[in-house]
Amino acid sequence: MKKMLGAAAALAYVSVAVTALQGQQADGPKYQGGTELVRPTDYREWPFLGAGLGLTYDADRGPGAQNQPQNFSNVFVNPSSYKHFMQTGTWKDGTVFVLEIRASATGTAPNTTGRFQTGVVAIEAEVKDSKLPNGWAYYEFGRGNAIRETAAPLTGQREAGCIECHTKHTAVERTFVQFYPHLLEVAKAKGTVKAGY
Amino acid sequence: MKKMLGAAAALAYVSVAVTALQGQQADGPKYQGGTELVRPTDYREWPFLGAGLGLTYDADRGPGAQNQPQNFSNVFVNPSSYKHFMQTGTWKDGTVFVLEIRASATGTAPNTTGRFQTGVVAIEAEVKDSKLPNGWAYYEFGRGNAIRETAAPLTGQREAGCIECHTKHTAVERTFVQFYPHLLEVAKAKGTVKAGY
Repeated sequence: MKKMLGAAAALAYVSVAVTALQGQQADGPKYQGGTELVRPTDYREWPFLGAGLGLTYDADRGPGAQNQPQNFSNVFVNPSSYKHFMQTGTWKDGTVFVLEIRASATGTAPNTTGRFQTGVVAIEAEVKDSKLPNGWAYYEFGRGNAIRETAAPLTGQREAGCIECHTKHTAVERTFVQFYPHLLEVAKAKGTVKAGY
Repeated sequence: MKKMLGAAAALAYVSVAVTALQGQQADGPKYQGGTELVRPTDYREWPFLGAGLGLTYDADRGPGAQNQPQNFSNVFVNPSSYKHFMQTGTWKDGTVFVLEIRASATGTAPNTTGRFQTGVVAIEAEVKDSKLPNGWAYYEFGRGNAIRETAAPLTGQREAGCIECHTKHTAVERTFVQFYPHLLEVAKAKGTVKAGY
């Protein structure tokens, strides 16, 4: 009986420890030297929010844009923030978005006209963290074969451009939930789509 | 001390229980009435393998195909099978693939020419299970607003079509790993790409 009570206590302990870990956002942002974001190595196991093809930040890609090679964009978010959003329609402190941009190709059997994803072109991130100067910060980890393990937050004009676009054109907080259809349903149900969107 | 030993025993018990659960493939296929596959409700939290646009099964979509509305295809696999593949380059018994087909749209700020994902068009699945007559089976859960909770395995000509295409055109076993670039790297490293592919 003592053993069973001990086992029950230990189970409770494990449960509390797991909860505490979640509270500390074990899957949240990790920084090096205070401000450099460490690129998550396991983001391919995080919940996938949506993919686009040719979904660049440019409002107008200009004439001949349709003849340029198009990239896929895959968006992932850390698991605990995903669960929080599905319950509330909001992003909690410690939310980490990873944007993985991949090249595309076509002409592989059995299909001849569709496009599929190939090599990594670039990796970027957006983080919601109340300890950050602007609440949210934007990071670029580099391109192609030069993807870095950490990235400093964008600053100055480049950060201002991120903030402007992520404020003006986003459906929920500073995130493009309009491109993540199953999240948009949740935001609509919870009433968290921005007024005026 | 007794308490601590009890706690240690309980921790060991929890660890063994978790391992046993993994052994039983807690995230593997669930059947109703013996053969009807139950549609996984949490597949959006499973590892995402890749997306395509216009990546249909058709070898030739015919003239004018480029003017037809194109769908996105998102592919997910159960977590324990994903981990197994990343370690071995092979699919273990109990692997469940979910193919989620979504419509696409364009013309939403800030981008005007790219395509993003919208509503669910269809959900399909492929399962590797040594208890199945052909080792692998194929399921269609329906389309649009009529997605069913279970699906019987495809049979006859329809199953034969699946098997033929998934045998003739796939890079690893009966799966289109050529469209999941980070898995293709693993398969190449492990030497599990099919001879002749």
